[in-house]
Amino acid sequence: MLTEQSTKDPLMNTKTHIQKVATDVNRNGVKVEKTLDDITAYNQKTLNVAFHANVNGHIGLNDNEVIRFDRVKTNLESAYHRKNGILQAPTPGYYVFFVHFLVLAQKRLEAQIVKNGYLIQSIFAGTQDVGHGPGSNLAIVRLVQGDRVWVKVHDKYHDTGDILDGPWCTFSGFLLYPEV
Amino acid sequence: MLTEQSTKDPLMNTKTHIQKVATDVNRNGVKVEKTLDDITAYNQKTLNVAFHANVNGHIGLNDNEVIRFDRVKTNLESAYHRKNGILQAPTPGYYVFFVHFLVLAQKRLEAQIVKNGYLIQSIFAGTQDVGHGPGSNLAIVRLVQGDRVWVKVHDKYHDTGDILDGPWCTFSGFLLYPEV
Amino acid sequence: MLTEQSTKDPLMNTKTHIQKVATDVNRNGVKVEKTLDDITAYNQKTLNVAFHANVNGHIGLNDNEVIRFDRVKTNLESAYHRKNGILQAPTPGYYVFFVHFLVLAQKRLEAQIVKNGYLIQSIFAGTQDVGHGPGSNLAIVRLVQGDRVWVKVHDKYHDTGDILDGPWCTFSGFLLYPEV
Repeated sequence: MLTEQSTKDPLMNTKTHIQKVATDVNRNGVKVEKTLDDITAYNQKTLNVAFHANVNGHIGLNDNEVIRFDRVKTNLESAYHRKNGILQAPTPGYYVFFVHFLVLAQKRLEAQIVKNGYLIQSIFAGTQDVGHGPGSNLAIVRLVQGDRVWVKVHDKYHDTGDILDGPWCTFSGFLLYPEV
Repeated sequence: MLTEQSTKDPLMNTKTHIQKVATDVNRNGVKVEKTLDDITAYNQKTLNVAFHANVNGHIGLNDNEVIRFDRVKTNLESAYHRKNGILQAPTPGYYVFFVHFLVLAQKRLEAQIVKNGYLIQSIFAGTQDVGHGPGSNLAIVRLVQGDRVWVKVHDKYHDTGDILDGPWCTFSGFLLYPEV
Repeated sequence: MLTEQSTKDPLMNTKTHIQKVATDVNRNGVKVEKTLDDITAYNQKTLNVAFHANVNGHIGLNDNEVIRFDRVKTNLESAYHRKNGILQAPTPGYYVFFVHFLVLAQKRLEAQIVKNGYLIQSIFAGTQDVGHGPGSNLAIVRLVQGDRVWVKVHDKYHDTGDILDGPWCTFSGFLLYPEV
């Protein structure tokens, strides 16, 4: 075979050229695959999580009670669970949470946004005058997959009887930055 | 032709090799085009929408009146229209809206964030004591292209005369997740 | 050489084919490089900036004082500086800022979110009745790299002595849209 090729110089050059082109093709192919994988991974990691929920009616609250915002208006990935009031992170990353309370006249409420039971941010609402008392707060927190966030009543600082004017009370949040 | 090729065995192998390489090149080319199309589509779909506006001066409000936040500070894609107080979605997706009111002493206001006229979220602000009364709320809602969102006064629950301390009153929002 | 090739017609066609394939390979290679560069640039430009901070204890405030939210809970890219209360933009783009105050009973506070010293958004909190007074506001603003944002007390409209119930007071924000 070697003998045959050396007597056909132009063909041997041609074969070498093909080898070089084939190598380039292979290298390009690997890069293309990697690029497509990167894009797929990026798109997969950018799971969309957002929820917005209110409370039904006028409700009273007990010490440490989890507040169930059971009128769910938006709930991507069903990450928020209306039955227990818990947001469970379907993907790791930085999340933004916003809570608003409208407390009935002459009542006051102290509540907490908690992550797996640990305080992230306190919220106060209420006045002692004759009108309703609004109050909001916001938190940005890193969650790993499966972490749970909810809003609970303080273990003692809150009035009794009907406190919340439900439709005005909001628990909402969204995934700001997914983590790869 | 068959006869000619079978007498030139090395060249025939070479041609087969070229065909294989050419096929790989073509396949890579198609993948590259698709990747570039994906990236272009992704960049096109991520239209940026964000606005932030306040109210001018002290104003009074009528039943069902649309509140015009006419001091516009940020307005990407000009999606918010200062003349009528309406945000019109230039692209479909999930949007976040925030509203804050500062109501003058001893006045109260009940208002609503609405989408195409339907209630998304109620907001209350005001006290009956001698000071100003602040109140905020936030909503996350899915809009299709052309959907309109504004803030309107409740059809009866609001005081009369000058109510709002304008520069403190905020209507803002942004596109959180574009939809493809 | 020309003579030799013209006597070997099939090989000459083969060489032409290889040249064509090689050209395609080169064109694909350039596209792949550009695609990878685009993706790298996109990933680099999407720097993540988010912070969430509260205040320690009960504090009093002076005219024009910068409020130091010195209990830092989240601080990506260390863009927020707890020692001086300033967020310095590490990358240009549109940023969202949220501020909440809980003011002690019968005290009132007027404050401002400022960018490089210029007013972006005013905030009021406080009541004159016997309870605490909450108040929030939000701003969306374009920053160039190095721009600084902080929260300052109004130059005269604020009460004296301990005003803020620190752990309830929040300064937080995030990069919404990076600019390329």
